[in-house]
Amino acid sequence: MENRNRQVLLKRRPTGAPTPADFEITDAPLPDPGEGEVLVRGIYLSLDPYMRGRISGVRSYAKPVEVGAVMEGRVVGEVARSRDPGFREGDYVLGGYGWQLYSAVPGQGLVKLDPREAPLAAALGVLGMPGLTAYVGLSEIGQPQRGETVVVSAASGAVGAVVGQLAKREGARVVGIAGGADKCRYVETELGFDACIDHHAHELGTAIDLACPKGIDVYWENVGGAVQQAVFPRLNDFGRMVMCGMVAEYNDVEPRPGPNLMSAVRRRLKIQGFIVSDRWQRFAEYRAMAAPLLKSGELKYREDIVDGLERAPEAFIGLLQGRNFGKLVVKLGDDPTRR
Amino acid sequence: MENRNRQVLLKRRPTGAPTPADFEITDAPLPDPGEGEVLVRGIYLSLDPYMRGRISGVRSYAKPVEVGAVMEGRVVGEVARSRDPGFREGDYVLGGYGWQLYSAVPGQGLVKLDPREAPLAAALGVLGMPGLTAYVGLSEIGQPQRGETVVVSAASGAVGAVVGQLAKREGARVVGIAGGADKCRYVETELGFDACIDHHAHELGTAIDLACPKGIDVYWENVGGAVQQAVFPRLNDFGRMVMCGMVAEYNDVEPRPGPNLMSAVRRRLKIQGFIVSDRWQRFAEYRAMAAPLLKSGELKYREDIVDGLERAPEAFIGLLQGRNFGKLVVKLGDDPTRR
Repeated sequence: MENRNRQVLLKRRPTGAPTPADFEITDAPLPDPGEGEVLVRGIYLSLDPYMRGRISGVRSYAKPVEVGAVMEGRVVGEVARSRDPGFREGDYVLGGYGWQLYSAVPGQGLVKLDPREAPLAAALGVLGMPGLTAYVGLSEIGQPQRGETVVVSAASGAVGAVVGQLAKREGARVVGIAGGADKCRYVETELGFDACIDHHAHELGTAIDLACPKGIDVYWENVGGAVQQAVFPRLNDFGRMVMCGMVAEYNDVEPRPGPNLMSAVRRRLKIQGFIVSDRWQRFAEYRAMAAPLLKSGELKYREDIVDGLERAPEAFIGLLQGRNFGKLVVKLGDDPTRR
Repeated sequence: MENRNRQVLLKRRPTGAPTPADFEITDAPLPDPGEGEVLVRGIYLSLDPYMRGRISGVRSYAKPVEVGAVMEGRVVGEVARSRDPGFREGDYVLGGYGWQLYSAVPGQGLVKLDPREAPLAAALGVLGMPGLTAYVGLSEIGQPQRGETVVVSAASGAVGAVVGQLAKREGARVVGIAGGADKCRYVETELGFDACIDHHAHELGTAIDLACPKGIDVYWENVGGAVQQAVFPRLNDFGRMVMCGMVAEYNDVEPRPGPNLMSAVRRRLKIQGFIVSDRWQRFAEYRAMAAPLLKSGELKYREDIVDGLERAPEAFIGLLQGRNFGKLVVKLGDDPTRR
């Protein structure tokens, strides 16, 4: 074990797109676990679009990261030292303890992971928060019916990939939207979507019309911007728009105008947003459903693993530009289950 | 009985605000009821904001009125001659037969009215389509809870007045928005809303903040425009926006931009539209609830009655500008129950 703890701090609040200079990499002393606490050595750090909200000053559903504080984030790690009788050295755990190599945290905030059930990093993606996000939004808002058309933006991403696969299991026609030919090929051939539109290559409106000849019944909104503008007028009567995120607009300094809402009357649309942290109580139910599908290979996923905490700022900046391909994870240290 | 049938035709599709020249008043021969039909002498014609959509060329949920055709509208009338054994001369009926004095219509499309139950014109307003609109949107989308704050735009209008009174019965704090001091006084003192904001007199944002110290949980959208812009950012987490109409924008040639929808994610908003004609199956249930309240005086309403079919175009134009005060009805002919 090292005797220093490398950390990434928020140096200042970005205006517009974050730059590496908005973050600071520093070394702190190794924390000492108190009574009931556990020292965790980080193995994988999750990077997610919501973090852009946490570092802006905008009023939101969660407390912002303070300037000078360690960036927040969920981590999978290994117990290095335990002062909680519920944990032993070598246990694998999931918890929210930030962009840093080590953390001393109360044992009661940690979830134990069994590496025989699924690869450790899956707890940050397909079996974690992004997977639950897909499950909650689809079952509570989108509610796709057999034969309906579901469009999923950011289709190769951590949430979109699960949304599409779950919607397919409900018997819907599923059309993805992603940036780039590689992503689209993956979405169609690996994830099994009926089609995927490359928004880098095609005029979106035409491409959607061709891929969705019966219009759109459910739109899963991950990105906003031009994709939203193309999809919204193509929603069918009684269409549902699941508002999960609008990553293409997260760096905007001024919010862009949205669609005129008279369409919501004429077409009886439902536009509804949600935040997965309101629905943790459904996590066990989701895992019970998804873990066997993952094991059997019916539920596919892909990780984009970046090596080293020092690369987290750059990887996060790329995430906001859609440069990742699959669930973005930073490898903080050795994964003993993968040796 | 006259031997001619005065009618108002759509002469041309208006661009922007309709003018009297978009309509034509004409005399047609008195129609002759066929087998199974009934000749109805109109007494009251309902004028409603949705009619603006019917005379535009915009794709919508219902067939537009053709240029040269009689304007559509619901009418309360008296059976003048019957060739349907279910109806006798002198019966009072409700049906959809347009801006005209007489109509020959199939008996099976008519609803018989009992003038002892309620005044005839109430079947066009508080006990009719506008009342059902309020009931459906509030029970299925708005769902106000005890102690929540409900804001109702066009609060003195046919729909808004019922929305607010029903929301009060659920134990909500109800704040109206209306145009003019007279309307606001009526909304507060007669309809019993907790407050009413005059959007002619006050800066809306400040007035809403003062009237809604705990924010807004349910917004009933009847008007759009500046009112929507002021209300939207003040919706609380988990707020519901019941999209019923946006009358202030019906004359727009180009749709205005709407709110940025990222708020729907952060604040977990539900923005949902509906059309009452999808929900006629709840009409009996609504009448069973509302008629006794009307009789006992617990449910209040107000009609704005304009005398004479010839004045219908002008009254309709005024409706789109908010010049009516209460449910707008055109008196087509003698009401024998009011002699």
